[in-house]
Amino acid sequence: MNEQKTHEDLLNYYIGLLSKIQHYREMAGLAHWDMATYAPKQGKSMRSEALGTLSTEAFKMSVSPEMQNILTELSEEEHFNKLPEKYQRSIKKDIKHLDKFRKIPEDQYRDYVVLTSKAQNIWEKAKEDNDFETFQPYLEKIVDFNQRMAKLVGYEGHPYNALIDRFEEGMTVEKLDTTFGELKRGIQGILDKIKNSSKTLNKRLESVNLSVEKQKILSEKILEKIGYDFECGRLDESVHPFTIGLNPKDVRVTTRYQEDFFKTALFGTIHEGGHGMYEQNIPLELFKTSVGSAASTGMHESQSRFWENVVGRSEAFWKGLLPEFTELFQDEIDKLTLEEMVDYINIVEPSMIRVEADELTYSLHIILRYELEKDLIDGKISVKDLPKLWNEKMKEVIGIEPKDNREGVLQDVHWAGGMFGYFPTYALGNLYSLQLTEALKKDLTDFTTLIENHNFAPIKGWMIEKVHQRGNLRTAEELIKEITGEGLSVKPYLSYLEDKYKKIYQF
Amino acid sequence: MNEQKTHEDLLNYYIGLLSKIQHYREMAGLAHWDMATYAPKQGKSMRSEALGTLSTEAFKMSVSPEMQNILTELSEEEHFNKLPEKYQRSIKKDIKHLDKFRKIPEDQYRDYVVLTSKAQNIWEKAKEDNDFETFQPYLEKIVDFNQRMAKLVGYEGHPYNALIDRFEEGMTVEKLDTTFGELKRGIQGILDKIKNSSKTLNKRLESVNLSVEKQKILSEKILEKIGYDFECGRLDESVHPFTIGLNPKDVRVTTRYQEDFFKTALFGTIHEGGHGMYEQNIPLELFKTSVGSAASTGMHESQSRFWENVVGRSEAFWKGLLPEFTELFQDEIDKLTLEEMVDYINIVEPSMIRVEADELTYSLHIILRYELEKDLIDGKISVKDLPKLWNEKMKEVIGIEPKDNREGVLQDVHWAGGMFGYFPTYALGNLYSLQLTEALKKDLTDFTTLIENHNFAPIKGWMIEKVHQRGNLRTAEELIKEITGEGLSVKPYLSYLEDKYKKIYQF
Repeated sequence: MNEQKTHEDLLNYYIGLLSKIQHYREMAGLAHWDMATYAPKQGKSMRSEALGTLSTEAFKMSVSPEMQNILTELSEEEHFNKLPEKYQRSIKKDIKHLDKFRKIPEDQYRDYVVLTSKAQNIWEKAKEDNDFETFQPYLEKIVDFNQRMAKLVGYEGHPYNALIDRFEEGMTVEKLDTTFGELKRGIQGILDKIKNSSKTLNKRLESVNLSVEKQKILSEKILEKIGYDFECGRLDESVHPFTIGLNPKDVRVTTRYQEDFFKTALFGTIHEGGHGMYEQNIPLELFKTSVGSAASTGMHESQSRFWENVVGRSEAFWKGLLPEFTELFQDEIDKLTLEEMVDYINIVEPSMIRVEADELTYSLHIILRYELEKDLIDGKISVKDLPKLWNEKMKEVIGIEPKDNREGVLQDVHWAGGMFGYFPTYALGNLYSLQLTEALKKDLTDFTTLIENHNFAPIKGWMIEKVHQRGNLRTAEELIKEITGEGLSVKPYLSYLEDKYKKIYQF
Repeated sequence: MNEQKTHEDLLNYYIGLLSKIQHYREMAGLAHWDMATYAPKQGKSMRSEALGTLSTEAFKMSVSPEMQNILTELSEEEHFNKLPEKYQRSIKKDIKHLDKFRKIPEDQYRDYVVLTSKAQNIWEKAKEDNDFETFQPYLEKIVDFNQRMAKLVGYEGHPYNALIDRFEEGMTVEKLDTTFGELKRGIQGILDKIKNSSKTLNKRLESVNLSVEKQKILSEKILEKIGYDFECGRLDESVHPFTIGLNPKDVRVTTRYQEDFFKTALFGTIHEGGHGMYEQNIPLELFKTSVGSAASTGMHESQSRFWENVVGRSEAFWKGLLPEFTELFQDEIDKLTLEEMVDYINIVEPSMIRVEADELTYSLHIILRYELEKDLIDGKISVKDLPKLWNEKMKEVIGIEPKDNREGVLQDVHWAGGMFGYFPTYALGNLYSLQLTEALKKDLTDFTTLIENHNFAPIKGWMIEKVHQRGNLRTAEELIKEITGEGLSVKPYLSYLEDKYKKIYQF
């Protein structure tokens, strides 16, 4: 960079660099999607290597001297003050990223990307075979890398803070311990009331089988209804459902069909649809900066949990859907009532698998992982003891014990993917979702009627305006304050749960 | 590179550089596949940009100072003589590539990748709408780039030679004019005999409709039979069928189903399967060099044409397949005889669309393009006149005239993809395929019986040994000489055609 470069030259150089990084990430994202959906069996291992190369190059660019120089130049007052907010925020974010992550040696970064990519294939097989031992050495390496990374990037307080911050800026073990403590007590309180309730819910639907083909039709129909745009996305199947935003015009979701448990695909699809709509509505002009992503992973989760639970598990939603649903499955289900369906999808029953958990106990699964994760990262517990510790924690927090590792420690892909620090955001999403719902209801006072009529456009519109189109211009904490007037709070969520289950379980 | 580097260091550096380039190309390949199969409608335009970035980076690396330096060092006698043949060949090939292509400015290269990626979407729409005008400016830019590229990389004789050489090393307009002249006369001679024959073939099968679902089953079954490995590949649908080898463990083919014309999918699938098996059987140790690809595009085509025509359109093949075929389509086709099927799939009838052409007139379509292409490149004709010229040439070479541009100049994606110099290889593939067949029959004297019994493993094995596993250690010209004892020849192909149609048309 020399003195002659104009303000505009600098900005264009910066935009060019970001766009190149984005292109690499887009391709890496496509490779991830492909490996989870259509890649042939034997192709995955070599793909991991290619993915490693590409992710590493993107990472290198993000911490390169070129990036450092341009960020320094653009940070100078004469330039910085002239920039629109989106660039100012983008530059600040990139500087923070660079300061932290340039300390990670690139070869270690590359090894880690390849490792976690391969570990996901190993995990898939290990889960199938109920074989933790095969997976263990991979997980040990992954934990080890995360421990070293925490040290390298630095943290205050608990080492796990360094990892959470990647997903939820500013969140700490100290804050989570308080928040999750309150949440756990609240949920367990409601759980006790349910256990003591004499109301038993009708479980007839537990024994119906619904054809996968028809479930697919339903999944697509619902995605269209809530406003997921198929011109900018698609729905496929994968072992672990996910959403991947390659760019706002290409946001793909996946789901998983179980003939004998239709709740998996139904709520899984709505859940990913919520994520998908967030990604589809990030403005293109933000997407070309480093703030063209969600406010945080927790805020992302607020969108999926909002559509899945607040909307999808409500009586109002099923009032609107029941006629279509009963027609579609007329051969499989006879004389279905609204009450029966609403009861069925809201049955509370502590269970083994997080992704199949009921709405109430779901957060307990997250708290369990959170407690294990932070102890793994600061070395209080070790990988080899995880199966045993998992089962003990399940007993302690949720009250039941897995019969094997497949429904225990091996149930989830996240650790294979190296996503330490990610789990807490699932529970934060629940909290944000109800904080947002309270604010939304003030603006859209006919919220319930809109849902009954499946008139989702105003709701989606509100989310776009308040959340999606803001991208990462604000952290989640800033955004939730801007929208609701207060920071992260457990209260709206607990009071929603209390009201909901009081009605269903009549306590 | 400093003096201390050992021979091994140098080689490892070279291998590392090649593997990085390969990873980029693999990702670009995946993006191509995705755009042609599953990418959502609106995602394609941004994907073109990402693809442009990635292909350009791969190109830059292939002509970079780092590459130049390592090639220079490894070319020094003390190193070069110690190297295994595969690296010697690889280095020579890379030097040739570098010497030619470093003259192309990288920004022009990038623009061209983006242009041809977008042009393919434009072409798709233009073909749908029978609208050449929309496509014309794109094609003009593409032709212009190819003209400039020919000048930059250099050539002897005709400028088109620079373009053919990318696909068929050492091939020239001068050689093709002779070869194609002989081929055209030979085919037209047989065509005349057919026209004068009093035998009329049964065309009942022209009016049957076969369900796409069942056609898919058949396509997969045949691919499995001939030895395409689904653990290292998959079959999908696309507007223009293609094969893409991301790496030997992930080689994907596509086909296109037409309910009212089952020959499209049937022979299209076998054709791509032939390409696919070539890619799947390139040895991994070669794949890590620059000679881990086919001997040439024409040799690649010899494999697809061999399986499609020599095997797939033979009486022996259908003797084996007929029972399964009639059972699968028992609701659609009544009392099908072997003779009827063999006649039907070998009907000779000049037609508009290359990919639907009969085996005999197919090469005439190629010669037509070749003649237009070389004149376009040396500026004798211009893009705006193409629709008219196309129709005139069709009349002259094939004897019929398209009713619109959709079945005329817009029928093919190749020009949109910028693949000037590629078309001749389709006809070269026909010639090579019969040269190989003659050699193969000397080793496998029970060739016809093997096909009748659908015992394809020995045939596939022969192709792997003689062709596939040799990768690009030899040019096509060298390889065909090694296998058959003589260079490119028209005779085996013409005598095969003569024998075949003599029997069918009884002339």
